[in-house]
Amino acid sequence: MQDHLTAVSDQVNAHFEQILSDIADSPISGAMRYAVSGGKRVRALLVLESARLHNVDSARAIWPACAIEAMHAYSLVHDDLPCMDDDDLRRGQPTVHVKWDETTAVLVGDALQSLAFELTMHPKGAETAEARANLGFGLARAAGAQGMVLGQALDIAAETSPDQLTLNEITTLQAGKTGALIAWAATAGAVMAQADSAPLQAYAAAVGLAFQIQDDVIDVTGDSASVGKAVGKDAIAGKATFVSLLGLDEAKRRASDLVISACDALSLYGQEADTLRQLAHFVISRRT
Amino acid sequence: MQDHLTAVSDQVNAHFEQILSDIADSPISGAMRYAVSGGKRVRALLVLESARLHNVDSARAIWPACAIEAMHAYSLVHDDLPCMDDDDLRRGQPTVHVKWDETTAVLVGDALQSLAFELTMHPKGAETAEARANLGFGLARAAGAQGMVLGQALDIAAETSPDQLTLNEITTLQAGKTGALIAWAATAGAVMAQADSAPLQAYAAAVGLAFQIQDDVIDVTGDSASVGKAVGKDAIAGKATFVSLLGLDEAKRRASDLVISACDALSLYGQEADTLRQLAHFVISRRT
Repeated sequence: MQDHLTAVSDQVNAHFEQILSDIADSPISGAMRYAVSGGKRVRALLVLESARLHNVDSARAIWPACAIEAMHAYSLVHDDLPCMDDDDLRRGQPTVHVKWDETTAVLVGDALQSLAFELTMHPKGAETAEARANLGFGLARAAGAQGMVLGQALDIAAETSPDQLTLNEITTLQAGKTGALIAWAATAGAVMAQADSAPLQAYAAAVGLAFQIQDDVIDVTGDSASVGKAVGKDAIAGKATFVSLLGLDEAKRRASDLVISACDALSLYGQEADTLRQLAHFVISRRT
Repeated sequence: MQDHLTAVSDQVNAHFEQILSDIADSPISGAMRYAVSGGKRVRALLVLESARLHNVDSARAIWPACAIEAMHAYSLVHDDLPCMDDDDLRRGQPTVHVKWDETTAVLVGDALQSLAFELTMHPKGAETAEARANLGFGLARAAGAQGMVLGQALDIAAETSPDQLTLNEITTLQAGKTGALIAWAATAGAVMAQADSAPLQAYAAAVGLAFQIQDDVIDVTGDSASVGKAVGKDAIAGKATFVSLLGLDEAKRRASDLVISACDALSLYGQEADTLRQLAHFVISRRT
């Protein structure tokens, strides 16, 4: 799986290089490049693989693949801000507001969100206007006040609340914070091909939740140096997580069950979907 | 013109009320409502009038009209942040980070940007997917690192630079900061109808620049209470503005000339475009 991700990472980085070189030098162009570099590119791989399953040309699919990575990058830049999670380290590097300043971090995040839509709607991306319009509409819903931003708002509200979240509440929170973009990425290929996206939707729902459970596991079992960002923060803050509510072993078992359901959801695609199955297994075996 | 704007404002507010009531209550839903309330609704009027000129149903045009107001509202919420322009007052009311906090202001801005794209791409908006895709792509470019965010980044960079901006540099800055969204709004109706947008583009370029010159005039001649936000900040900060570079009289004369060109650009539409002509005159006569 790491080979696949490295290959996707190379493609995504090369495409970003080209896109960002078209943007004139400005006070934020360097920080934009910095913010989109690195990362595991799991979301881009989901787009490219779901596109491949539907015979969508990868030269077209690279546009929404970079779009979802730009969207993800914006969310990290804003989440790391002092008024949000206040993190100094991301992917082993200083966060944008540490390396530059808060002003730059706010603007870079804002510009990357716009860029995500620009790439999604780019005429060189999905072939039909119908598909581009559907992708754009779906991305807006996944990113906004009923998706990713809702998840982040609930997460921050939970930190200041005296009550611990229940398992249901954490699941809702994570469905927004992480799940919505993962679902968009995993279904993008079907949307591009105007095919049924239900199997990929089911796959994504299970993988997205497994992804977040594993994040909680890593927060407990990992060390900051190898993870590349602060760990153990949730336990220190006394935040309810999948691990604190279920225990480490049960959390791992649930994640593992979810990966099995995710793989089952792809039966329609046969062996063609093996990379997506490997990705599901990778999600719960990763250490960073 | 004020009657037109009041009517548009009522339409926009009613539509926002409906849209936002569909978003579940969350830690940011109240602040989102607050952020999109008020405002002159000049951009919405541009969308609705350009749609009317191209026989686009106003029930469809209200979607991109609210979209551009959501985008504008996001930009104000973020621009007012302490790390940006640090303003406590907007439209005569406390800014979002003052009434709530910075976390809420960042998230509300982020969610409103997503909402702007959601409304633009909404199937009940522009009739064809082609038009929706074109509107979405254009909005992304207008809002992002080559449009509005670029303008804001240049503006903030200018504040910390020892050099004063030249007239050309201020014109470029404002073309991004204010002009790009105004151009999108004024051409939206033509894009929805898949008609030639060149005359409206020319109108918008002139009106957008006149709008910003008038903003600089108001910053010098207005008082905070009637303007509804802090005034005189540019002069205090020693920032170059159209007024500081041209003098008050010449700035007013240029704005007035721009309004004449803006009106001329609409000759193709005859009397049908009279509301847009009145709007151009309103832009340079407004006091807030």
